[in-house]
Amino acid sequence: MDYMYAPGKNHLFVPGPVQIPDQVIRAMNRNNEDYRSPAVPALTKTLLEDIKKIFKTTSGTPFLIPTTGTGAWESALTNTLSPGDRIISFLIGQFSLLWIDQQQRLNFNVDVVESDWGEGAKLDVLASKLAADTAHTIKAICIVHNETATGVTNNLSKVRKLLDEYRHPALFLVDGVSSICAIDFRMDEWGIDVALTGSQKALSLPTGMGIVCASPKALEASKTAKSVRVFFDWKDYIKFYNLGTFWPYTPSIQLLYGLRAALDLIFEEGLENVIERHRRLGKATRLAVEAWGLKNCTQKEEWFSDTVTAVIVPPHINSSEIVRRAWQRYNLSLGLGLNKVAGKVFRIGHLGHLNELQLLGCLAGVEMILKDVGYPVKLGSGVAAASAYLQNNIPMIPSRI
Amino acid sequence: MDYMYAPGKNHLFVPGPVQIPDQVIRAMNRNNEDYRSPAVPALTKTLLEDIKKIFKTTSGTPFLIPTTGTGAWESALTNTLSPGDRIISFLIGQFSLLWIDQQQRLNFNVDVVESDWGEGAKLDVLASKLAADTAHTIKAICIVHNETATGVTNNLSKVRKLLDEYRHPALFLVDGVSSICAIDFRMDEWGIDVALTGSQKALSLPTGMGIVCASPKALEASKTAKSVRVFFDWKDYIKFYNLGTFWPYTPSIQLLYGLRAALDLIFEEGLENVIERHRRLGKATRLAVEAWGLKNCTQKEEWFSDTVTAVIVPPHINSSEIVRRAWQRYNLSLGLGLNKVAGKVFRIGHLGHLNELQLLGCLAGVEMILKDVGYPVKLGSGVAAASAYLQNNIPMIPSRI
Amino acid sequence: MDYMYAPGKNHLFVPGPVQIPDQVIRAMNRNNEDYRSPAVPALTKTLLEDIKKIFKTTSGTPFLIPTTGTGAWESALTNTLSPGDRIISFLIGQFSLLWIDQQQRLNFNVDVVESDWGEGAKLDVLASKLAADTAHTIKAICIVHNETATGVTNNLSKVRKLLDEYRHPALFLVDGVSSICAIDFRMDEWGIDVALTGSQKALSLPTGMGIVCASPKALEASKTAKSVRVFFDWKDYIKFYNLGTFWPYTPSIQLLYGLRAALDLIFEEGLENVIERHRRLGKATRLAVEAWGLKNCTQKEEWFSDTVTAVIVPPHINSSEIVRRAWQRYNLSLGLGLNKVAGKVFRIGHLGHLNELQLLGCLAGVEMILKDVGYPVKLGSGVAAASAYLQNNIPMIPSRI
Amino acid sequence: MDYMYAPGKNHLFVPGPVQIPDQVIRAMNRNNEDYRSPAVPALTKTLLEDIKKIFKTTSGTPFLIPTTGTGAWESALTNTLSPGDRIISFLIGQFSLLWIDQQQRLNFNVDVVESDWGEGAKLDVLASKLAADTAHTIKAICIVHNETATGVTNNLSKVRKLLDEYRHPALFLVDGVSSICAIDFRMDEWGIDVALTGSQKALSLPTGMGIVCASPKALEASKTAKSVRVFFDWKDYIKFYNLGTFWPYTPSIQLLYGLRAALDLIFEEGLENVIERHRRLGKATRLAVEAWGLKNCTQKEEWFSDTVTAVIVPPHINSSEIVRRAWQRYNLSLGLGLNKVAGKVFRIGHLGHLNELQLLGCLAGVEMILKDVGYPVKLGSGVAAASAYLQNNIPMIPSRI
Repeated sequence: MDYMYAPGKNHLFVPGPVQIPDQVIRAMNRNNEDYRSPAVPALTKTLLEDIKKIFKTTSGTPFLIPTTGTGAWESALTNTLSPGDRIISFLIGQFSLLWIDQQQRLNFNVDVVESDWGEGAKLDVLASKLAADTAHTIKAICIVHNETATGVTNNLSKVRKLLDEYRHPALFLVDGVSSICAIDFRMDEWGIDVALTGSQKALSLPTGMGIVCASPKALEASKTAKSVRVFFDWKDYIKFYNLGTFWPYTPSIQLLYGLRAALDLIFEEGLENVIERHRRLGKATRLAVEAWGLKNCTQKEEWFSDTVTAVIVPPHINSSEIVRRAWQRYNLSLGLGLNKVAGKVFRIGHLGHLNELQLLGCLAGVEMILKDVGYPVKLGSGVAAASAYLQNNIPMIPSRI
Repeated sequence: MDYMYAPGKNHLFVPGPVQIPDQVIRAMNRNNEDYRSPAVPALTKTLLEDIKKIFKTTSGTPFLIPTTGTGAWESALTNTLSPGDRIISFLIGQFSLLWIDQQQRLNFNVDVVESDWGEGAKLDVLASKLAADTAHTIKAICIVHNETATGVTNNLSKVRKLLDEYRHPALFLVDGVSSICAIDFRMDEWGIDVALTGSQKALSLPTGMGIVCASPKALEASKTAKSVRVFFDWKDYIKFYNLGTFWPYTPSIQLLYGLRAALDLIFEEGLENVIERHRRLGKATRLAVEAWGLKNCTQKEEWFSDTVTAVIVPPHINSSEIVRRAWQRYNLSLGLGLNKVAGKVFRIGHLGHLNELQLLGCLAGVEMILKDVGYPVKLGSGVAAASAYLQNNIPMIPSRI
Repeated sequence: MDYMYAPGKNHLFVPGPVQIPDQVIRAMNRNNEDYRSPAVPALTKTLLEDIKKIFKTTSGTPFLIPTTGTGAWESALTNTLSPGDRIISFLIGQFSLLWIDQQQRLNFNVDVVESDWGEGAKLDVLASKLAADTAHTIKAICIVHNETATGVTNNLSKVRKLLDEYRHPALFLVDGVSSICAIDFRMDEWGIDVALTGSQKALSLPTGMGIVCASPKALEASKTAKSVRVFFDWKDYIKFYNLGTFWPYTPSIQLLYGLRAALDLIFEEGLENVIERHRRLGKATRLAVEAWGLKNCTQKEEWFSDTVTAVIVPPHINSSEIVRRAWQRYNLSLGLGLNKVAGKVFRIGHLGHLNELQLLGCLAGVEMILKDVGYPVKLGSGVAAASAYLQNNIPMIPSRI
Repeated sequence: MDYMYAPGKNHLFVPGPVQIPDQVIRAMNRNNEDYRSPAVPALTKTLLEDIKKIFKTTSGTPFLIPTTGTGAWESALTNTLSPGDRIISFLIGQFSLLWIDQQQRLNFNVDVVESDWGEGAKLDVLASKLAADTAHTIKAICIVHNETATGVTNNLSKVRKLLDEYRHPALFLVDGVSSICAIDFRMDEWGIDVALTGSQKALSLPTGMGIVCASPKALEASKTAKSVRVFFDWKDYIKFYNLGTFWPYTPSIQLLYGLRAALDLIFEEGLENVIERHRRLGKATRLAVEAWGLKNCTQKEEWFSDTVTAVIVPPHINSSEIVRRAWQRYNLSLGLGLNKVAGKVFRIGHLGHLNELQLLGCLAGVEMILKDVGYPVKLGSGVAAASAYLQNNIPMIPSRI
């Protein structure tokens, strides 16, 4: 039953799907249930309430859709927009590219604002476009909060400020797939209209649940949006919300119980502590990269991502070889460089239910691999740099003091 | 962590989601993995090959989509048809109704052929429509193989015969959600163009995987079909099939291993034996219903379903009360009557990884509930009738002889 | 990985090991932990407190020993007695026989009081022996509360009355393996000195934990008892209890968490409700046996066991064939007749985390098997008799009203 | 349900219980079964055959006893020896001390040969005793292969050589608890009469199975050994082996399936590769200790243990503080110093299903802790030393090349 067995634990450091906490695996280790019994709505009610805390919204309406991040994107777009609508979308890496591809195939008029891979969204361009758009032809701003391909985090509060400055009514749609629940995210405060994530990212669940949260303004827009949709239609969810049965079609019972357990763990640790832990892991990783003498794909500190670090390898090395070797020799799973940066970067995911010693094990592995492929790294250097920082910053575990 | 606890096992007799075999629960009890490592494609390859055996196709192309049955419907329709296309669709119960609703919302020109609930699809009407359609304006025939709301199984081979008789090129699209892998189903022999099912039905997995299989003709149609689609677009799958990496977006690792285990169990038992077991369970259930003096919602024997039995209750009894009581007193989950038959029928699901003594426990429970709600059933009568049949027909367990 | 696979759930109706609740399986689905960390003692403390509630003792000292019931027996005997000590022991079936065998091999002077298999302990003989023993040569009374081989429950309160009546200081040692947590058991009220059970019986856990509870008088006796013991020595446990680390050697982390979950379920249902449920299941089983025209191995009503029923088969039928057939054709596990009643009885275990519909499925299966082996049973008759009783007596599920 | 929760995985580096492979956790995630059905003997048969391969014996008879290592000791002693028998036993640390304590309490005449903690067994003393014992008053040599408290591995082949040299018939009893399946062990070649281990050590299972293997000579001795025993009596096992039902009392079904999975993994990796992996892990750990400027408790290289390293801390540091801090801040579980070396050493267990990056994560953690407690370690130094060795010695993973 095991494909390509290796001794010991797999070190899973791709930026999703991430390690699932044992508590969540346990909670999901169960039979099916009748989702029309009173127990499932009772459970669902708690989930919908609690997921809002993760998005930091009180006015938003969450949807737990049996789909992936790609489906969550489609849900966000088709419920709020009509074919031909002009939208601004920022191309800064592979995942924003894929979202733009979807936007185009859904027949929106996509005004693409492109950056070099490794740079953040060009918000100055957004400013000019908003300034120019006195006729409010722009219906939505689509932005990836954290570009998983390059490790770039965009500044969402600045987007909101620009929209406010120009009193522009465009919808503000955010892909928070690799940020929500790991990087500071404030749906209400930043006036985000649709935010979305996937279960297999910072929530540390299996793949299979696309989580979308809609502001009142987005819900209003959905009443007139003309994009064709059925499976992804919010209307059907809202109908069953009103009935108190919650589900227009069959949910995964296992994922519901898994989400319950995942949220319980997050609240036990404290959402702010979870975010702080990701800050530590991100910083430690970047210090290691620096100690190795390698460059971060992310061009400026303001864009540094706390959930994934894309590391640029010297020109004579193929980064795919690093990923291959990690898996073939060390049972370590790293992220490939994608598209424009294929062969040029490898990625270390540091999100989800992960602690510092797990990361240091990974960093020690990367050092050996770098040596394997001929890069003259000083073994232990990255671990030393990361440890020096971590040893000063890891808090005591509250339950154990 | 448990919502509305009761002692002992839950007796899950809704027609899906069904009981998951322990072996499958075990196989799914696992951490995430990097789906871009070589192990996941290696596993996927075996799944795609083996799932075809379940559909009885050698020429079909299967898609394992992270979605539900509703999403699988949308995949079947949007990949093969264009807005405005005329399609014939049979309304015979709640699930065919929901599919037709989807077809209409997807902007097809749906020619609805309605039957009384409890009757099968009116194939004579199909015959006349095909005969009249010399211009071939009908682009597809959409039919639910087994209507889960009423326990009616349609005759698919007859549909094919009619299409052949009239040399009609319409696509033949089949919802096999509550039939495939439980009721005789022959994709190639019956010339079905798109067949689909969901993981939580006869495959006995959790919800979350829509399984769609397309004939070469359907694939050809997808090249020109103009329905807007991205998440459900087969093209993206085929692109990654050709790359050998198989997944356009993240699959659920757990469901992949679960499907592997589920298929292994089916092949261990033998697909024909699985179908024969469902025949036994269906027949036994119907004998019990008869012994109770109650009527099957299904009007004629030719439509009897081997995966679900909808039982009509006397007018003075509300069938919802039966379902409620089953759950509140006996830890038994039965199916509600839906829509037109709400309050009038309750449903016993007998599909998936289920054996005869499990069914007899359920039937014994139903007898007590009938008495609870004032129906003068003779306790033991249904069990006696079912047992008399089963005792003559249950085979020895091959591995134990 | 599966030995002798069969479709559907296994119907486990041996009188132990019994079905494990899903909640307990989930709780045990975990990695090892350092049992010397503060977490394990914290958990253990709650277990030791709560297990006393199950034994209905406040003054007893519990020991959770990594062993089976056989080891728990040895722990009870060797800690309280010295070689050559005279003890009275009742032989009423296979398990009391095995305990007596152990007592003899441990070099006690065993005064065996034998009954016919199917009868209870001869307490009148005990009375005479106590009356005669003015010199108090009898050091202990050893009695099996519920003889699992014949389904006979002895009257422990009467034993206590006799000891009190004759002011006899003998220790009162009780095997509660198939009674504690299922049949009314009151350690303190009945003045029991050592009581014991095994995890795989009414507690519904895997095998591996022998649970022994010692009264202050038993603890006192252990200080002078000369039987050689090390692994089973209570002294080592008490030493670590006093240290607050609890474990003289490594416990099974999984069983500790499993026990926590099992106790939580019992308290959720309510111990008295658990006992009442067993009363219902026992009564229903006996009514079925009667309806089949078969005889209960237990001779008198006062000894009827609520956890196991031994059914006598007609002389021309071999009961082993019934057990074999149950397993080979119906995936049903029944208990064999043992020793003197081998071939003559088969046993239905009805203990642990079990509900009424599960039992009715089993009874329906037994009917078919009886017919298979040529006994002219009326199919449905046992289920009818059991249901008639159950339908009047099953309570609503509190969490679901 | 979780006691003293911390984010991320627990880093379990005590020398047992060790990390359980996911495959084994999965295999054990199951309900109880009737151990008297034909399936359990069929499974047991494969286990008994395969466990012999782990002990490297063809003539030995294995016993899988529901107990711990302490019980396995008792089984080894009481089945082969009689009270008063003279035995030689080596005291080299806490676990040999505990075994000697047991030997004394079981009333053997124990001739204790003591070493300083950190030294191996004094085999020269053994030589003199054997030489002197021309009357063959010595009935057995008891030796711990790998003393877990100090990380000392004794030379068993030398013991055999001495016995042969003096043609001494004493039984050769070996505690292989922290060696078998991790350190080279050859029962037949070294003429060992009883060897034993526990499930929670190198086999990487939960606690609960004591595994004892007896040579033909030991079996012969058991026929006349006069130590009182029942639960641990081999005779009962052998009786049931001959019956083909294998179990004198109830085994843990879960541990049987777990052992099956554990053995499958070991054979998949190759027993020699498993041992080689432990050699690498041991060597890497010792290199790190050296780089930190700390001393190994083990005095000479010939005794270095490949499964546990006891590290001596400078006098001004309390090693218990290191262990406490590891758990309270880093979610890392280390072993305490025991008895004579309490406060003076901490222990790193490196046995079981463990790979190199897991160990490096642990070593990085130890460095930070050392700094926490005021030891002036150079962060990264141990990891660097270990990595330098590992990077040259880790083989490619065969299934992935």
